[in-house]
Amino acid sequence: MNENAGGSNGRIHVLGICGSLRAGSYNKGLLRAAQELARDHGIDIEIYERLRDIPPYDADQDTDDAMPEPVRHLKAAVSGAAGLVIATPEYNYSVPGVLKNAFDWASRPAKGSPLNRKPIAIMGASTGMSGTIRSQLALRQSLIFTDSFALLQPEVLIPRCADRFDANSNLVDESTRALVGKQMAAFAAWIRVVNEASDAAVGVQQ
Amino acid sequence: MNENAGGSNGRIHVLGICGSLRAGSYNKGLLRAAQELARDHGIDIEIYERLRDIPPYDADQDTDDAMPEPVRHLKAAVSGAAGLVIATPEYNYSVPGVLKNAFDWASRPAKGSPLNRKPIAIMGASTGMSGTIRSQLALRQSLIFTDSFALLQPEVLIPRCADRFDANSNLVDESTRALVGKQMAAFAAWIRVVNEASDAAVGVQQ
Amino acid sequence: MNENAGGSNGRIHVLGICGSLRAGSYNKGLLRAAQELARDHGIDIEIYERLRDIPPYDADQDTDDAMPEPVRHLKAAVSGAAGLVIATPEYNYSVPGVLKNAFDWASRPAKGSPLNRKPIAIMGASTGMSGTIRSQLALRQSLIFTDSFALLQPEVLIPRCADRFDANSNLVDESTRALVGKQMAAFAAWIRVVNEASDAAVGVQQ
Amino acid sequence: MNENAGGSNGRIHVLGICGSLRAGSYNKGLLRAAQELARDHGIDIEIYERLRDIPPYDADQDTDDAMPEPVRHLKAAVSGAAGLVIATPEYNYSVPGVLKNAFDWASRPAKGSPLNRKPIAIMGASTGMSGTIRSQLALRQSLIFTDSFALLQPEVLIPRCADRFDANSNLVDESTRALVGKQMAAFAAWIRVVNEASDAAVGVQQ
Repeated sequence: MNENAGGSNGRIHVLGICGSLRAGSYNKGLLRAAQELARDHGIDIEIYERLRDIPPYDADQDTDDAMPEPVRHLKAAVSGAAGLVIATPEYNYSVPGVLKNAFDWASRPAKGSPLNRKPIAIMGASTGMSGTIRSQLALRQSLIFTDSFALLQPEVLIPRCADRFDANSNLVDESTRALVGKQMAAFAAWIRVVNEASDAAVGVQQ
Repeated sequence: MNENAGGSNGRIHVLGICGSLRAGSYNKGLLRAAQELARDHGIDIEIYERLRDIPPYDADQDTDDAMPEPVRHLKAAVSGAAGLVIATPEYNYSVPGVLKNAFDWASRPAKGSPLNRKPIAIMGASTGMSGTIRSQLALRQSLIFTDSFALLQPEVLIPRCADRFDANSNLVDESTRALVGKQMAAFAAWIRVVNEASDAAVGVQQ
Repeated sequence: MNENAGGSNGRIHVLGICGSLRAGSYNKGLLRAAQELARDHGIDIEIYERLRDIPPYDADQDTDDAMPEPVRHLKAAVSGAAGLVIATPEYNYSVPGVLKNAFDWASRPAKGSPLNRKPIAIMGASTGMSGTIRSQLALRQSLIFTDSFALLQPEVLIPRCADRFDANSNLVDESTRALVGKQMAAFAAWIRVVNEASDAAVGVQQ
Repeated sequence: MNENAGGSNGRIHVLGICGSLRAGSYNKGLLRAAQELARDHGIDIEIYERLRDIPPYDADQDTDDAMPEPVRHLKAAVSGAAGLVIATPEYNYSVPGVLKNAFDWASRPAKGSPLNRKPIAIMGASTGMSGTIRSQLALRQSLIFTDSFALLQPEVLIPRCADRFDANSNLVDESTRALVGKQMAAFAAWIRVVNEASDAAVGVQQ
């Protein structure tokens, strides 16, 4: 059994990654809100802080010997988590390159990647009207390749976020907080299902 | 008139960017082939060599004062070219994060980006069967935002590229070379049309 | 020269297709607004009324002899227009099947389809917040195959349309009307560019 | 408990839908192969034969009183199945309009659609090199809206299908048959997981 999804204390350990490097990022605030709201649903979110350190993907460095230390750290963090929460802005109708680059490293090797069968919840906030719709579609497309179990509904798409966060980029809008909480509840259930499925699959394959 | 698309010598200056950092990259070889084959169509491709130097996009650094030097260099190179040729692999059913990160920088500000109305040709090679189909779709989605004029047809999607390149990653397959040449011919015509259109638009707006 | 894009009277003849069959469709109202607002930019939009009549695409009927009459009519209407305006809702994060089915017929044969190099403007209205973002992305993906010249910017994405249309589904919101007018102005310029390009291409190929 | 996924005999009842209406369709042959190969994995596929009868979606007819009989039949067939297998060609880099139209009807109402939480396996064959890659991406995008549990891996993407099917459009290529069988095995496991999840969710919500 996957120990991350309910150890002796029954808590679920999840890694949270924000796609924006900006200090005052709304999406960082969104991830903090998710961290807070997930607790009641048994999920403890550890926020990943080293996205900036990950070098650009280079297949020549993607070997046991050459792999940069921040990549090892990222892959271990993903492996050790029962799921991921991704909070990301939309850049050019897609995922920020810096976030995609982290997935490029974590997705190797295709069979045996820590992303395989990993439950993933996706959320995003934008100052405009779209709420990161296109970014989330783009991310879901990538997750087909890695065979990652992205939660479908409810989607957390937050438009006009400047009205919903305070001056410290903390999420204060109650209806948005309720939606984030609802997604975290669904995510907790989703993680349990996927883990049972993986356990069953192991049993079948013996 | 856009001087890059036919100066005194009538040649078209284009910037070529490869999405892979691997030394022996097939897509680098593909870009070299495009460079060679484009000449007969009046296009001189300068290959961009500093993708690795571009730091991860951080909106806090996206100011006149804080902008990193490699980003300034990239934006100037894009501005100074009459068009772009992108040769890129597919990572996780999308564009490599490192390439997307370069577009994230170059796309700012949304109005006034050097990518606006820029003609762009897209090509890609994969060892598998898909020929980078999904990567090219993903890139096209981003180029809607930047109002960039991506050439539609012919598409250059090269599957099973290991059979078409030699040991030095040079493109040797004749039918593939013919396709690349055909795209470069279409691209030269496309650049001329777009530039005339932009000139006309300037006339209209006076 | 393409006579549809400026005959003796210099007017541009365009075919408008709505993706919704609902009598009181907001997107029908949006298309009527485009028709009205396009006139000042030299575009006369004829609204296509027979979408419902087009049978489901069946390759066995896609022959000179078997082709259903409504399909012949559609293809002739597309051929005879200098461009298309598509106003469509979003169903299931994509284009309505009924609209896609019309494109499926019109796109044959791949080389020689009336959609090849056809300028196309896309707009859409939704009662929710997305403004048909995903539907427009999906349509643009299809138009790559047909080598159709979809206008990029400005996009007309109309969220919460119930507030912008009157009880007869006429577009009354002034800022939205201004956006539609702006797109029609850009579309008129785009059609002229594409036609000149096609004329030039013909010249080159002689 | 969902009776379709293991009644008294433990068999799983699944509905198979082909996106092509052509009599000699390769994708119909692919669906027949899936039907045959699924049996060993406990899945009985009933092939849906009335796609042609479904009228174009019209919201004015989407009421209890006005709903066309073929639509009632389709929705009942989807409801009564423990999962769907979709075998579809690619038209214009997307799903055939006729297939999308069926999903448009089946997806209403958004909450309470028979597609909600429905396990779905996707496969496709093309005469060209792409193997319906883009069509499958497009279908997956639609299934996010309906909260349908599309199986991720293995994908069944069959390029150059003319070499793999016989003159009666029966799938004869052994490696392709093995891939289809592998997907059906994964699908059987996936259906069981999803059903247990749904049962658990019902328990939680009481």
